[in-house]
Amino acid sequence: MIRKLCAEALGTFTLVFGGCGAAVLAAGVPEVGIGFAGVALAFGLTVLTMVYAVGPISGGHFNPAVSFGLAIAGRFGWADLIPYWIAQIVGGAAGAAVLYLIASGAPDWVAGGFASNGYGALSPGGYGIVAALVAEIVLTAFFLIVILGATHTTAPVGFAPLAIGLSLTLIHLISIPVTNTSVNPARSTAAALFAETGAMGQLWLFWIAPLVGAAIGAAIWVGLLERGTEPDIAGESR
Amino acid sequence: MIRKLCAEALGTFTLVFGGCGAAVLAAGVPEVGIGFAGVALAFGLTVLTMVYAVGPISGGHFNPAVSFGLAIAGRFGWADLIPYWIAQIVGGAAGAAVLYLIASGAPDWVAGGFASNGYGALSPGGYGIVAALVAEIVLTAFFLIVILGATHTTAPVGFAPLAIGLSLTLIHLISIPVTNTSVNPARSTAAALFAETGAMGQLWLFWIAPLVGAAIGAAIWVGLLERGTEPDIAGESR
Amino acid sequence: MIRKLCAEALGTFTLVFGGCGAAVLAAGVPEVGIGFAGVALAFGLTVLTMVYAVGPISGGHFNPAVSFGLAIAGRFGWADLIPYWIAQIVGGAAGAAVLYLIASGAPDWVAGGFASNGYGALSPGGYGIVAALVAEIVLTAFFLIVILGATHTTAPVGFAPLAIGLSLTLIHLISIPVTNTSVNPARSTAAALFAETGAMGQLWLFWIAPLVGAAIGAAIWVGLLERGTEPDIAGESR
Amino acid sequence: MIRKLCAEALGTFTLVFGGCGAAVLAAGVPEVGIGFAGVALAFGLTVLTMVYAVGPISGGHFNPAVSFGLAIAGRFGWADLIPYWIAQIVGGAAGAAVLYLIASGAPDWVAGGFASNGYGALSPGGYGIVAALVAEIVLTAFFLIVILGATHTTAPVGFAPLAIGLSLTLIHLISIPVTNTSVNPARSTAAALFAETGAMGQLWLFWIAPLVGAAIGAAIWVGLLERGTEPDIAGESR
Repeated sequence: MIRKLCAEALGTFTLVFGGCGAAVLAAGVPEVGIGFAGVALAFGLTVLTMVYAVGPISGGHFNPAVSFGLAIAGRFGWADLIPYWIAQIVGGAAGAAVLYLIASGAPDWVAGGFASNGYGALSPGGYGIVAALVAEIVLTAFFLIVILGATHTTAPVGFAPLAIGLSLTLIHLISIPVTNTSVNPARSTAAALFAETGAMGQLWLFWIAPLVGAAIGAAIWVGLLERGTEPDIAGESR
Repeated sequence: MIRKLCAEALGTFTLVFGGCGAAVLAAGVPEVGIGFAGVALAFGLTVLTMVYAVGPISGGHFNPAVSFGLAIAGRFGWADLIPYWIAQIVGGAAGAAVLYLIASGAPDWVAGGFASNGYGALSPGGYGIVAALVAEIVLTAFFLIVILGATHTTAPVGFAPLAIGLSLTLIHLISIPVTNTSVNPARSTAAALFAETGAMGQLWLFWIAPLVGAAIGAAIWVGLLERGTEPDIAGESR
Repeated sequence: MIRKLCAEALGTFTLVFGGCGAAVLAAGVPEVGIGFAGVALAFGLTVLTMVYAVGPISGGHFNPAVSFGLAIAGRFGWADLIPYWIAQIVGGAAGAAVLYLIASGAPDWVAGGFASNGYGALSPGGYGIVAALVAEIVLTAFFLIVILGATHTTAPVGFAPLAIGLSLTLIHLISIPVTNTSVNPARSTAAALFAETGAMGQLWLFWIAPLVGAAIGAAIWVGLLERGTEPDIAGESR
Repeated sequence: MIRKLCAEALGTFTLVFGGCGAAVLAAGVPEVGIGFAGVALAFGLTVLTMVYAVGPISGGHFNPAVSFGLAIAGRFGWADLIPYWIAQIVGGAAGAAVLYLIASGAPDWVAGGFASNGYGALSPGGYGIVAALVAEIVLTAFFLIVILGATHTTAPVGFAPLAIGLSLTLIHLISIPVTNTSVNPARSTAAALFAETGAMGQLWLFWIAPLVGAAIGAAIWVGLLERGTEPDIAGESR
């Protein structure tokens, strides 16, 4: 169990350090900066690489909403949920702290939003609370469906980390302008700890919406999709 | 069958919500927007991820032209075609509706083209009807050839969703300036429902051209490529 | 054999239509254009997707220099070389012709360089003939080493199209500013046919350099790397 | 052993020629340049492609810090360390020399930083020495964890080059603004040889930090993660 919690902490460390790091350090550099697309790629690659690396140890959740949704779907023990959450929050906060240390080494450094999530005045594009709620719920539900489907016994072996990581890239390609993209309460908490913009006051939404979305995604998978999955692949229906 | 239709509806929901969502929400943000390349990646990743997730259930078409081409090639039952089409259209429309709800949460929101497809005055680059027809037909034919080839029994197992998803990214990298890229009548229909620019009046082209292209692609595969495929891979001919 | 030549023609059609198409249609769109990185991705994805689709039929060369290098390395029959070259040139030219048809549907269309390759005045960055020769030779040699290595019996099954396609993306990320990147005489020939800039007069270099590079790559593989390849993977040396 | 050293030299040649080549030749082209994101992709693809190509021969390190970390973790023989380092340094220097030859073929060419690594005045974003040290140590540790995890016997077969290559892309997406990203002393040495900016005087940091980081990564893997890895994958904990 200790190894599992180390794996979850390290994975969430990487997700926050890598994803928020790309956003804070590299997104806005004039002319050659990586932009939102580079940040989207970075978030996805943190999950893709760390699930290949430590997925066999802990399952590679790195996200309280994922652990929650997997528990609802019967793929993860409820007794492990709180330990996993603690490991994820601690790991994510550590990732943000190390990122802060590096980022503050730049001339004229200001923490500002520090890649935190927000709505209204704290949304990158000024999107309101309803848009933020809907986006986070729908995208977390999608995330869980990909996770549950790509790790199902009928899916091809070995490709799950690829599908799951790239689904997180997709989620960011869509929604960075809306909420800066959370779908992960540990990531939101970690960034809010260091933001200077009041992100902590909006953190509740980035716990509730991902958890609700994960529950919906798990329910859709179990209720509408899972049972009786016959092994017929693309173009081989019937 | 219900599970198959749910899978197709969810997949097409994702394709429209994710692909058009990236275009509407994130493509044009000044400085750090994802641009056409980010939109191309998003469309491809919707298919890549959802085929890994629910491909074993329904085949993962998410596109009336794909279902049509697979039926022509003998890989999909004609009796299922209309149910699949309905699921795809309903799922796509729902994806566009949820996207509309989120997008309208931005200050100064106008729907405008809403990532709909078009030619002439509604083409992003002002391309005429002939260019639009040729592009949609050729690219849908290519799409079907990749689908039929990558899911063939001689292809390596598990890689089809990767090849198919990335072929949709390639298609968008080429043709967004021409028609905003359809190759998918359900995607075109969904976006046209919410566009304020008269896209509905051009929708016929984005049904006819993809269906014709899919038929051509299926015919090329079956007629010129399929029979007698010996298992000799790159650099191992003879 | 007819099927093999159809597969090579279709693959080279796709490579030229897709790669040069992304360059001509989408690279330079203001603000949201895909730039050199998008073009690099497009070229790579043409090969990645078509090798998954038709690689089991013809080997998936789509490039006279690749066929030549594979023949030198003993992986392809010399008797098939000229038929393959003809199929590749015809397919590539057809791809350029269809692209021309679409591209000319834009208002204010001028063919200009039409994504052709060049050095000196015809190099995107003004690079001279020595830089062009060295770049094309070195990068084609690299391309052949990846192809020969990734399709070797000691390499993991199914990943070769991924490695080979992405190596072509890498090649373009490096060298578009130098020569607009060839490493493929059929691609250079096809674009030169429609260029209005005198690219045909420089075409000799984009046959000689890729063929020389392919020979060097094949020689390096066979001479320095191939024999006695023990199955020890990353981190498992000795 | 000669074949192994040839493979390491060729791989490091490719890493420097390809990664630094993309940076020097293509990153800063106005309007259509590939930017930091394109450079990040290029570095990752050099490793992804060459590990698929020659990984079965030498293990595919291409990096003195990787060889060092693998030796600490017991996956690589200490007796081979110095020969590997020499092959990597020679190959990297040759890659930089060929790149210099090509780059100097541009009009108005100045070598400048030549994609070398640096801190303070030589950091792209002016980051200080502490930020540089922390970034290089943390990211090299992460790199080693991915390498050790993705090549472990519990990881899915064949995906390691993908995970490892893309982890190098992720590392660059984060840290190009900080140090121009090293995590590889051979790459730093090669670029410093041709830089005109005093990079050689800062080279010590790009040997010490990656080696320290690799040792930390190996220690984390062996101490906290490795032993007793049961084969339970994503969503299948317990």
